[in-house]
Amino acid sequence: MAPSSALSTVSVIRSDVDRELSVFCADHRGRLLEIGDELAPAMDALETMVSGGKRLRPTFAYWGWRGAGGADRDERMIRAASSLEFLQACALVHDDVIDNSDTRRGLPATHRRMAKMHADQGWSGDSEGFGQGAAILIGDLCLAWSDEMYQASGFAPDTLQRGRVPFDAMRTEVMAGQYLDTLEQVRGTATREAALRVMRYKSAKYTVERPLHLGAALADRYEELAGVYTDYGIPLGIAFQLRDDLLGVFGDPTTTGKPAGDDLREGKRTLIVAETLERSGSADAERFRELLGAPDLSVASVEWMCSLIETSGALAACESLVEDYAGQALAATEHPELADDARGPLRDLVVAATRRSH
Amino acid sequence: MAPSSALSTVSVIRSDVDRELSVFCADHRGRLLEIGDELAPAMDALETMVSGGKRLRPTFAYWGWRGAGGADRDERMIRAASSLEFLQACALVHDDVIDNSDTRRGLPATHRRMAKMHADQGWSGDSEGFGQGAAILIGDLCLAWSDEMYQASGFAPDTLQRGRVPFDAMRTEVMAGQYLDTLEQVRGTATREAALRVMRYKSAKYTVERPLHLGAALADRYEELAGVYTDYGIPLGIAFQLRDDLLGVFGDPTTTGKPAGDDLREGKRTLIVAETLERSGSADAERFRELLGAPDLSVASVEWMCSLIETSGALAACESLVEDYAGQALAATEHPELADDARGPLRDLVVAATRRSH
Repeated sequence: MAPSSALSTVSVIRSDVDRELSVFCADHRGRLLEIGDELAPAMDALETMVSGGKRLRPTFAYWGWRGAGGADRDERMIRAASSLEFLQACALVHDDVIDNSDTRRGLPATHRRMAKMHADQGWSGDSEGFGQGAAILIGDLCLAWSDEMYQASGFAPDTLQRGRVPFDAMRTEVMAGQYLDTLEQVRGTATREAALRVMRYKSAKYTVERPLHLGAALADRYEELAGVYTDYGIPLGIAFQLRDDLLGVFGDPTTTGKPAGDDLREGKRTLIVAETLERSGSADAERFRELLGAPDLSVASVEWMCSLIETSGALAACESLVEDYAGQALAATEHPELADDARGPLRDLVVAATRRSH
Repeated sequence: MAPSSALSTVSVIRSDVDRELSVFCADHRGRLLEIGDELAPAMDALETMVSGGKRLRPTFAYWGWRGAGGADRDERMIRAASSLEFLQACALVHDDVIDNSDTRRGLPATHRRMAKMHADQGWSGDSEGFGQGAAILIGDLCLAWSDEMYQASGFAPDTLQRGRVPFDAMRTEVMAGQYLDTLEQVRGTATREAALRVMRYKSAKYTVERPLHLGAALADRYEELAGVYTDYGIPLGIAFQLRDDLLGVFGDPTTTGKPAGDDLREGKRTLIVAETLERSGSADAERFRELLGAPDLSVASVEWMCSLIETSGALAACESLVEDYAGQALAATEHPELADDARGPLRDLVVAATRRSH
């Protein structure tokens, strides 16, 4: 089974999420256009950002709910889960400004798209600056709409209030994780501990653990299940990010993947980099450090870096970590508190998220 | 009576707001430092942004509550009102990035402060870029914490849900207003209608009307008072912004004010500019347009522009608009639905917000 189809097996709510987001966007497009017609291009850019992606966070929130005994395809839960896509849209739009990225999911990043509109219209001032400003505001709208959609999901206000603990923690953690990530890049930190901490907050808690906690809280079983979902979510989230990082260095064997060496050119301080530096002799480590993030990195240099990752033992160590963490997550699905019909999907999600192609 | 003391007379909750924000920040500083000690400078920068300012939005929210019969200095209302300061902090931090502003309230803007830290530490990469990225994330934290503080204010979940209508509208409107403002600057639009629309959304609804609506909704009297507060809040908000714009051109006669001509150098498309252009001959209008926003604008040019604003009749028209709008707001305080003990403070707020020095 290809991993994307493995993911789609458990993403039974994917089309429901798409529908709920479309309904919310149509309503809010109307509100924006009442303020001014000129807001249409900003709304178009915003809607593009919530139209794509794997819907990972809603999927984990939904299975967190089902694992806590929540009803099959409950519409309130689908709306609450969908609201996490607006948070993710904010994170992506703002991260692309922060990292000065050109593209996102094969399309121009939001700030590039808005800069192009500025240039095409021949407006005064700096197109890049306009694009960045517009993207900051579009991301802000996404962040505000995330909790607006959550609060309007249809759950009773008391229930929503219970869900605020993981909902609020998730937002603080992803922003703190992103700040630490930015900090590690400029400080040139490349220790295992630093890499693991960023993965923990920016990926594991944000993508897996907190969405599961949210589902449990909305089903009023947070107390019983928070620990189980942490035991499942943290290792799975780290394994998932590590698999993604390996694909970012060695490329995706399927045709749709990233080009090999991409993350090395960008200079990302991943766990793979930390493992390589800590396992190499000082001359090799120094050369690796110098090449990392060089914008004009040659194919030969990428090949040399990849071979050091292999010969140092970092690749095997990371692959083995993925296996270990996946195993821990699988073991957590045996917990007796979990509803039986969620065990299979939660296991499938481990397999889908950690296999060698995405 | 000096205007600042007039404002403080009605800002009886100012020290309560300061206290509630300090309590919230102390708690959230602890949460951030648990994630990583390196988050301390970001938290310091964030706390600086919520420590200053006139507390206008909490003040209007509080008097909206009192005008709806809400209890004197209700702690829940003070917390809900204080949460608006986090929204304002997000708006300021992000606006300063968007406008590339150097200072805010006499201190370095957040992105400049964070850029300086990067430079002082000798970290790798671009200090400006790091500062902007950090400021985007600090603003995001403020935006997330605004609704977190609102939801944790202590009102019953049902009551909070009622307040979401103005709370949510306020956020969408200020972001849309800021986008339109950015758009007007680059398009060089300078019509009365465009300037009034930006003032309506970015100032009047955001600063006055929606906070009043929030207070009324939390007192469960939104239906009865929404119209009264709109009749009061929109004209007062426009008058307040117009007074601020006049001070931005002609300077503040008190010693603490802005330097004269500041807004002309920045090229702001205010109503004063629109009135001047629409009331001047084409040669004068063209020269005014060319000078507007020139970074090296001479003192002589500023003087010429100020004299055109006067001789064209734009100054008198704007002063007269401030009077008219203030009069409309004062008239709205006569409405029988308003609680009697709020009439005086609501009238004082009109006087304080629209007089010739701030």
